[in-house]
Amino acid sequence: MTETATVRRSRITPEREAELYSAVLDLLREVGYDALTMDAVASRTRSSKATLYRQWGGKAELVVKALRHQKHSHFGEVDTGSLRGDFHALVTRENNCEMEQNSALMRGLAVAVHANPDLLDAFRDLIIDPETNEMQRLLQRAVDRGEIRADNPATQYVLHMLIGAFAARTLIDELPPTQEFLTSYVDAVVLPALGA
Amino acid sequence: MTETATVRRSRITPEREAELYSAVLDLLREVGYDALTMDAVASRTRSSKATLYRQWGGKAELVVKALRHQKHSHFGEVDTGSLRGDFHALVTRENNCEMEQNSALMRGLAVAVHANPDLLDAFRDLIIDPETNEMQRLLQRAVDRGEIRADNPATQYVLHMLIGAFAARTLIDELPPTQEFLTSYVDAVVLPALGA
Repeated sequence: MTETATVRRSRITPEREAELYSAVLDLLREVGYDALTMDAVASRTRSSKATLYRQWGGKAELVVKALRHQKHSHFGEVDTGSLRGDFHALVTRENNCEMEQNSALMRGLAVAVHANPDLLDAFRDLIIDPETNEMQRLLQRAVDRGEIRADNPATQYVLHMLIGAFAARTLIDELPPTQEFLTSYVDAVVLPALGA
Repeated sequence: MTETATVRRSRITPEREAELYSAVLDLLREVGYDALTMDAVASRTRSSKATLYRQWGGKAELVVKALRHQKHSHFGEVDTGSLRGDFHALVTRENNCEMEQNSALMRGLAVAVHANPDLLDAFRDLIIDPETNEMQRLLQRAVDRGEIRADNPATQYVLHMLIGAFAARTLIDELPPTQEFLTSYVDAVVLPALGA
């Protein structure tokens, strides 16, 4: 048996993968990261633990891949032709219900990320780095169109502004982050800070 | 015995109060909010549980008062005569070590706040509302001096910008929020968004 054949035989279908990720996110919302076990995932999804470990390596990777799958399964890169259009498209890619669920997940993960180096690595590779790269391409296009200056110091803080507002909304206003809130925040804060 | 005398006799000294709050914060950092018990506080501080309950009412109030005591014991209201000066003073009131400790505490509390209505109420009364009020006075003085316009939509999002950047810094950059980071963020984001 060749290595290729082994890989092919052990690969699960995209549908089954989506089902597994969805179950992992349900469990995360129910019990949080620390209390989530591979046993519980195996039992909930009727898989063997050996399969889970072979396919994902460990809990941290499984959790982050599940988050990333949910986050980006619906959409490709945003490119509307204007900076304001791109930001508005970005903050309305998820509907309000999805955003509220993500907000709860992020709160639950915020402590775990700092206590688990594996989770932090996976979180960086699969979520923070791609978001940073997409943001850089979005800003570069705005620079190329002459909408913003490349040397504006606010360009390095765009993710802090957006992720920060997403995280702070619930704490400050006891309201979930919504498309309306984030769109208004983009217009009031992000675009003016960028001088756009 | 008059009521005044009773109140006077049951009041603990400011030194003892500070000692208690400090022990509560140590415990919070060590075990997190959910695992923190009044028994543990009583044992750590050699007090009786009855005293703790009589003085603070419950765990949520004790924790939030401890946070607030630490947060504001050193400083009065900031008023430097300029908006930039006020913001810089605000984000350098705590040294970097205090900020990193607070960052860890806030992460640990973020989940608990949403699971405990008492804690959320106390958190709002003792931290969010006073911060909001101080920010409004600070912005009003800038409006009065003609530095910013009262109808600038960014004025309603100043806490989101600042608390958000504080919270997002560790996640995005794997670096603690520092005076240098927040001062740079104020100059690059907060002041330009306010049109100052």
